[in-house]
Amino acid sequence: MENKKPLILISNDDGYHAPGVKKLVEIVREIGDVLVVAPESARSGYACAFSATNYLRLKPRHNMGEVEVWSCSGTPVDCVKIALDQFCRDRRPDIILSGINHGDNSSVNSHYSGTMGVAKEGCMKHIPSVAFSSCYYNEDANLEPLRPYVTKIVKRVLAEGLPKNVCLNVNFPARETFEGVEVCRMTEGSWVKEIEQRHHPRGYDYFWVVGQYRNDEPEAPGTDQWSLNRGYVAITPTTIDVTAYEAMETVKNWDL
Amino acid sequence: MENKKPLILISNDDGYHAPGVKKLVEIVREIGDVLVVAPESARSGYACAFSATNYLRLKPRHNMGEVEVWSCSGTPVDCVKIALDQFCRDRRPDIILSGINHGDNSSVNSHYSGTMGVAKEGCMKHIPSVAFSSCYYNEDANLEPLRPYVTKIVKRVLAEGLPKNVCLNVNFPARETFEGVEVCRMTEGSWVKEIEQRHHPRGYDYFWVVGQYRNDEPEAPGTDQWSLNRGYVAITPTTIDVTAYEAMETVKNWDL
Repeated sequence: MENKKPLILISNDDGYHAPGVKKLVEIVREIGDVLVVAPESARSGYACAFSATNYLRLKPRHNMGEVEVWSCSGTPVDCVKIALDQFCRDRRPDIILSGINHGDNSSVNSHYSGTMGVAKEGCMKHIPSVAFSSCYYNEDANLEPLRPYVTKIVKRVLAEGLPKNVCLNVNFPARETFEGVEVCRMTEGSWVKEIEQRHHPRGYDYFWVVGQYRNDEPEAPGTDQWSLNRGYVAITPTTIDVTAYEAMETVKNWDL
Repeated sequence: MENKKPLILISNDDGYHAPGVKKLVEIVREIGDVLVVAPESARSGYACAFSATNYLRLKPRHNMGEVEVWSCSGTPVDCVKIALDQFCRDRRPDIILSGINHGDNSSVNSHYSGTMGVAKEGCMKHIPSVAFSSCYYNEDANLEPLRPYVTKIVKRVLAEGLPKNVCLNVNFPARETFEGVEVCRMTEGSWVKEIEQRHHPRGYDYFWVVGQYRNDEPEAPGTDQWSLNRGYVAITPTTIDVTAYEAMETVKNWDL
């Protein structure tokens, strides 16, 4: 009886050199064969962007021992597209993983996240895909406590697959012990005070996009941030069918 | 009785100079006061990306007569963020419009689209938001036939608002007469053969992201591309709550 190892394609948005992706590789190497194709430098906030007008380049990297690692000059989504085309023609990945991101991708952050861009792209390619993020923004944070959770989730997705059009957005609270796992919905939240104005020595104004995040439903059990705030690993099943089905009737009634 | 005109904020992903945004301004000027803040050059495929590491600059432009136009060095989403912060502190937009995009944003294109990035960002800022796209890729195409539809949709959204977390993705078929309007769901589609390899004179390989779109359910009535293919204007109500509610039970049952 054949016992073929699964092929695990990994990307991220922090870049191929980030501690988070190294940790993810280290964790899942025991589960399958690993291929990494990740951005050559940080690509935070790239969402599902792809390179419509810039060409891509690939470079082999040797920063993870025997694991095959390539950097790509493009976006996180580009990494998935080029990995599938250049390295996976004869052997399609059984799963696509993203991360471990250094920072929170729960709530509306999901829309801006390049980490989630990878998972959504994998899902659009009909491959089970999971994004892992830690709410620690410090790249030196200890991610070892994530190991048993990542292992269990990856094995389960490999065994069960995921429903059509669904990928997983998995966020870990910024702590070293977890209360367990909760399956959540996306928290409603808003970014406010997002623009910081500065004055250049040469006399013109320029602006940084920063901002403060506000949880708009901080007391709502079942939301991903409610779970994170209470020490749980939050899994938010995320759909790429973004049709607002409940709103269809409303708009139909407008009789346009 | 006060008859205050609504404030209409417009952006796009083709850039402030694109014929599509000029046409949109020309159409909706009769409905309200218009402010344009759009990318300084084309930003196709930017999705919900924002500038996490690059600063932004704004420049006043004078390419649309009396209408206030600013270009922004950043992404479509950046345009919305900086417009709200810099120009709308005292008067919040009543509606945010995006487009008219030169190209199809139905089906999974919605995820990659900077045009939709604008609408999603507006929605995340709790402002009714509508993205308009024409399936004509040619920037010289005649967009005048869109006028009565754009007018009707904008007026209706101004009057009724939109359900929470919902924006509209409106696509027009590449023709000059339309059969009517249909409210649709997002078509399931896939991009295939996305990478084209080239050889540089200096000896290295580089890659373009292109691809062929495949409709995975070409015979499904009610999908946006089914309507477009039959000459209808397709309105796809789009949610920013991307929780896959139906998949939650499945993942809960994994007992992680």
